[in-house]
Amino acid sequence: MQIAFSQINSALGDIKGNAEKIMLEIQRAADLRADLIVFPEFALLGYLPEDLLDQHQYIRNCEKQLQSLARKIPANIHVLLGMPTFSKNGRLHNSAVHFSKGKVRKYCHKTLFPNYDVFDEARYFEPGDPKKNILRIKGKRILVTICEDLWLFHPRYKDRYPNIYKEINKKDIDYVVNLSGSPYTKVKMQSRLKMLQEANQYFKKPLLYVNLVGAQDSLIFDGRSMALDKQAKILTQSMAFQEDFNMVNFETGEAGKRHHINIKDTYAEIHKALVLGVRDFIHKNSFAKVHLGLSGGIDSALVACLAVDALGAANVHCLAMPSQFNVPESLDLARVLCKNLGCSLQVIPIDDYYKSFSKNLSDAFEVKDFSLMHENLQSRIRGLILMAYSNAHPSMLLSTGNKSELAVGYATLYGDMNGGLAPIGDLLKTEVYALSRWYNQDHELIPQRIIDRPPSAELRHDQRDQDSLPDYHVLDKMVEDYICKDKKPRGEYKDWFLKQVKNSEFKRRQAPPTLKISERAFGRGRRYPIALK
Amino acid sequence: MQIAFSQINSALGDIKGNAEKIMLEIQRAADLRADLIVFPEFALLGYLPEDLLDQHQYIRNCEKQLQSLARKIPANIHVLLGMPTFSKNGRLHNSAVHFSKGKVRKYCHKTLFPNYDVFDEARYFEPGDPKKNILRIKGKRILVTICEDLWLFHPRYKDRYPNIYKEINKKDIDYVVNLSGSPYTKVKMQSRLKMLQEANQYFKKPLLYVNLVGAQDSLIFDGRSMALDKQAKILTQSMAFQEDFNMVNFETGEAGKRHHINIKDTYAEIHKALVLGVRDFIHKNSFAKVHLGLSGGIDSALVACLAVDALGAANVHCLAMPSQFNVPESLDLARVLCKNLGCSLQVIPIDDYYKSFSKNLSDAFEVKDFSLMHENLQSRIRGLILMAYSNAHPSMLLSTGNKSELAVGYATLYGDMNGGLAPIGDLLKTEVYALSRWYNQDHELIPQRIIDRPPSAELRHDQRDQDSLPDYHVLDKMVEDYICKDKKPRGEYKDWFLKQVKNSEFKRRQAPPTLKISERAFGRGRRYPIALK
Repeated sequence: MQIAFSQINSALGDIKGNAEKIMLEIQRAADLRADLIVFPEFALLGYLPEDLLDQHQYIRNCEKQLQSLARKIPANIHVLLGMPTFSKNGRLHNSAVHFSKGKVRKYCHKTLFPNYDVFDEARYFEPGDPKKNILRIKGKRILVTICEDLWLFHPRYKDRYPNIYKEINKKDIDYVVNLSGSPYTKVKMQSRLKMLQEANQYFKKPLLYVNLVGAQDSLIFDGRSMALDKQAKILTQSMAFQEDFNMVNFETGEAGKRHHINIKDTYAEIHKALVLGVRDFIHKNSFAKVHLGLSGGIDSALVACLAVDALGAANVHCLAMPSQFNVPESLDLARVLCKNLGCSLQVIPIDDYYKSFSKNLSDAFEVKDFSLMHENLQSRIRGLILMAYSNAHPSMLLSTGNKSELAVGYATLYGDMNGGLAPIGDLLKTEVYALSRWYNQDHELIPQRIIDRPPSAELRHDQRDQDSLPDYHVLDKMVEDYICKDKKPRGEYKDWFLKQVKNSEFKRRQAPPTLKISERAFGRGRRYPIALK
Repeated sequence: MQIAFSQINSALGDIKGNAEKIMLEIQRAADLRADLIVFPEFALLGYLPEDLLDQHQYIRNCEKQLQSLARKIPANIHVLLGMPTFSKNGRLHNSAVHFSKGKVRKYCHKTLFPNYDVFDEARYFEPGDPKKNILRIKGKRILVTICEDLWLFHPRYKDRYPNIYKEINKKDIDYVVNLSGSPYTKVKMQSRLKMLQEANQYFKKPLLYVNLVGAQDSLIFDGRSMALDKQAKILTQSMAFQEDFNMVNFETGEAGKRHHINIKDTYAEIHKALVLGVRDFIHKNSFAKVHLGLSGGIDSALVACLAVDALGAANVHCLAMPSQFNVPESLDLARVLCKNLGCSLQVIPIDDYYKSFSKNLSDAFEVKDFSLMHENLQSRIRGLILMAYSNAHPSMLLSTGNKSELAVGYATLYGDMNGGLAPIGDLLKTEVYALSRWYNQDHELIPQRIIDRPPSAELRHDQRDQDSLPDYHVLDKMVEDYICKDKKPRGEYKDWFLKQVKNSEFKRRQAPPTLKISERAFGRGRRYPIALK
């Protein structure tokens, strides 16, 4: 049996548009004489819909488009498509729907629901019965599973989930298919391979894994759909971070050929993930252009590089807003970077605004010495100018903060935190350096001095990040342990660190979304109280 | 049997402090010869902990304080206390722990988990077995239930939850006790009474309901613990929105006497809720003082009134920041209000800043006419000044936006949306008017002109809210239908409204927490995607 599988970049809520894309893929598969085409989880509605699922007109529209697709498809092809459907008690199922020859044949429902990190599936869905999820297509019996349903085989989840397949006789199935909506993280590919190998070992049948691609808000779906033979050998793997149409024939072992990035090159992967994340966030929000404050520091330099790769240099506008506290070199470096990138740079000095606010407010609020107020004034004046640009042009402001800063609140709320998206908000500062070095591996795209000179917010004379923060290697280890792994931080800074994390929760609650690349990013997947003893 | 029940205002995470408060209440109950004292759900840790539960040292500390309490309590009293405990598979239970005479006697675990709105209990907890939740104390058999466990009896949840008590013979129990952490909403009391009456009718036994009091971030717990006899007659009801210690004897029918606010006086209730919400948010975040921008409009006037009631006039500082677009009456009205309230008012004109930004940025960004940029500049200059005050003084900025504005994005991000808390962010504009009139029922606290004159943001000449928005009665009906009830809005503005709600999600994602008084507030209980077709 020829099986096609198409990892598409669905647009959340654009059911009609997604259905058109799905129809084209079905036609393509039929033209290639495929017997079956499989799409990812929720390919029809888009993913992750969150409470959009409470708007039942979306569910009804999915059903309508499903019926319309079923009527339109060629006669010789079977389709398996992920979408939400109503359950009997007025709630929902997360379903894989089998249709062919003008008719919907079967609804298979997901049984296990991820309810951790960014996932809240128990909030919406009723489980199905795995025994009912066996399709018969052209004499083959296919066990249909949806994403988490197979993760029970991963050692990490073995205590959490029961084996929902123990009543299924493995002899009664020929293949296992999994429709997934599995977001990228730096370590996801290893976990996913482990899970697939364990599942494969359990069933001892060929396995087809079809994953979404594209970004939705904070989540980046990496695709990399895979076909494994019954000995868990990978027959083919679809492309990473891009749409791909692929084929496999488990009987003959024939499968599509692909060229891959080396997954051991972590930063090549992170780069592709972030570029896709920026591009989809901007485009799916109906923007084409972005702008950002370029300080001459490493964070904004990296964000500019990513934005140019995502949208093209013509769609990236940088603003440098120097004050008396910026060394002239900062502006020079910003100029060189923009020249290297080919994007525009506008210089708007802020000293006059700063002096005026600083003098009047120091008097009004009786602040005698240079203080945090004066530092934040500069950051907020810049934030105000950047938002004025947003109002003047159809362009989204990108925030340039990183995860290490966000963790300890080393950022100004309503100042440099401003933006519609924080592309590197889930990168540790040490990762910001590493990805910048990756950018420079062939030639000096980012001026080397931006990477080499000591990091500074330049909000007071001769300021250095390390006046206020531990060395970034020390800080990042604590962020990694505490934020990502729920492990107590260690070392001399641990009490300071815990206090900072707690006291800056109010800032993070008002931060723009980040692009998630770690196991635990700030945002929807980490839900901490603000008022906390 | 004499049963004491204490609705305490636990501080989230302050396990030691909560344990001390609990010990005092136990002592008081023992002194009054109570046989048993019951505390609310999670009284030891505080509620709603969200992902704080992932930090297992908090769970271990709860266990430690539990053991310490068990050792310290007087010999003749039994205690039933809500707290998290570890489950066998390394996850958690939401438990009611019975201890007496130096020993922990029994752990009863919650079975049904709310997993909607602000609640994510399936994220953390494993269910218990209700059959094991029967205590024997002084010859009486008490069925212990925790919050949601009894909500299965409410008609609204009958399809969602199975009857977990069907294997329990009602003859084997003498009383039913429920430990709750049930937050206030405008309609909660009616639902709660319905639920308790239905539960009572099912068991036909006396029922004791013990609810938390106090606010945690967006949630306001209203207390109002209740004892019902076996015919569902309310024997006593503890106070609303304040700590209370109460007693009941189901054999004799004797119970504590209380004076209550009339729950039909909706605005008296909302007032008490919001005052508690503001006070606890400020104090539990270790602040004593607040400040806000007072425009002469009704929203900021109402927030000033609430802040004064919550914290005292000496702890509320108002800033008026007039521009050329404000009519002089606005400042006059702000002055009269501050005089009436007894709080301080500082006037900081913004015209010079505005002119300077406006001229330079119109040139820099090639904006020819007066536009949205110019309007937002004013709002953001005010936001910047208010945050400078935050940096200069230990005072939290209150945001003055309401729910109607937030719904359609009629607010400036990083401008008037600035603040640590939005006290009226869950009040419709029509409710803002109603609560203001409630304030004025005895004498004119809020100058009547503030209530009577047409609402305006005063960001351009002769601006009126109704230049951009439908009449507030029309808008509020759509907000109520669509946001709170997931019903499609109707009428001529419905398409405009749906587009506005969708396109302003990015603003709400960065908004400060509101105080939840409706069935669906913006914030953690409403999770919508940003990028959406």
